[in-house]
Amino acid sequence: MKVTADLCVIAYGTGTSMSEYIAACVRIIEQAGLKHHLHAYGTDIEGEWDDVMAAVKRCHEAVHEMGAPRISTTLKIATRTDKEQGMDDKVRSVEEKLGRR
Amino acid sequence: MKVTADLCVIAYGTGTSMSEYIAACVRIIEQAGLKHHLHAYGTDIEGEWDDVMAAVKRCHEAVHEMGAPRISTTLKIATRTDKEQGMDDKVRSVEEKLGRR
Amino acid sequence: MKVTADLCVIAYGTGTSMSEYIAACVRIIEQAGLKHHLHAYGTDIEGEWDDVMAAVKRCHEAVHEMGAPRISTTLKIATRTDKEQGMDDKVRSVEEKLGRR
Amino acid sequence: MKVTADLCVIAYGTGTSMSEYIAACVRIIEQAGLKHHLHAYGTDIEGEWDDVMAAVKRCHEAVHEMGAPRISTTLKIATRTDKEQGMDDKVRSVEEKLGRR
Repeated sequence: MKVTADLCVIAYGTGTSMSEYIAACVRIIEQAGLKHHLHAYGTDIEGEWDDVMAAVKRCHEAVHEMGAPRISTTLKIATRTDKEQGMDDKVRSVEEKLGRR
Repeated sequence: MKVTADLCVIAYGTGTSMSEYIAACVRIIEQAGLKHHLHAYGTDIEGEWDDVMAAVKRCHEAVHEMGAPRISTTLKIATRTDKEQGMDDKVRSVEEKLGRR
Repeated sequence: MKVTADLCVIAYGTGTSMSEYIAACVRIIEQAGLKHHLHAYGTDIEGEWDDVMAAVKRCHEAVHEMGAPRISTTLKIATRTDKEQGMDDKVRSVEEKLGRR
Repeated sequence: MKVTADLCVIAYGTGTSMSEYIAACVRIIEQAGLKHHLHAYGTDIEGEWDDVMAAVKRCHEAVHEMGAPRISTTLKIATRTDKEQGMDDKVRSVEEKLGRR
């Protein structure tokens, strides 16, 4: 089962800066060989369900190991059975409707 | 790693009623032996990370098997290392601050 | 336009306890006269779009005034035009499918 | 109060394609003069709280007018009082940690 996800990890009970935690998560996603796109409010990830979810778990483990006592993640997860559609296809499909492709 | 999650599965490309899909998900969560609370915009779930995530995956599989071609799930995931705190503790802690316990 | 929402406010760059912030938000929602249900990972709210969104804004203002420098909120928002359905109806509809009503 | 938001509108009780609804929302955000970034699982938006929320409301109205009977939106909303930080700054800050800037 292929999945497109949007991962947004918030670490709290710690300082105001989130960027070092997010960078650690991006490295984990990269090391897992997963296609991804970092945006201003999360990281889109594309891959097999188990691979994506294993990466999300490692993100929680890593952020706790970096010293954050609490994490609240918002994870959006999309699956479909009618056709294959990757992250780039989703954006392209909207841009076509907007007359930009 | 213990987790408190809030699972909200939206099936689309199908009819307007979501309740049969949500009921199927609640049954899966129950069969997994996970503590849970159905509310108006999702189901809170408490348990070990792997058990909760396995149930979420089975929910996607089941909802697709019921005929929904597309699913978009919003999953909130909370972990903490500073203390153990279950679903009931979270609600109780707020209600105490409100002077209701 | 009627809306059912699920509000989850995370304050960060501050301590580990979230309950005093959540309690402040619940008071704001109550003072707005909005129907609501506090659960383990958020607060479901029912009302007119503008009333619900005004309360959400006041929650952000109040949590900042309490000293939290950063807030990340996950807000789910449901609207429908096919029929009226409140928070209680949503839960009841699922419980009926589960054979519990 | 400045806000960075991530808007993900799911229309259901309708067909499987979401792109025409998302395109309509992007047009609304553009017409509101709001800075934004379309990604694979939502649209990041930056602006004043009231302007962003007014655009989100118009998105719901427009998607219903296009024929979708039900909408479930996941909206992430970030505010901060410690410093000004726009969408681009957020991404740049993570990329610096990753040694890419």
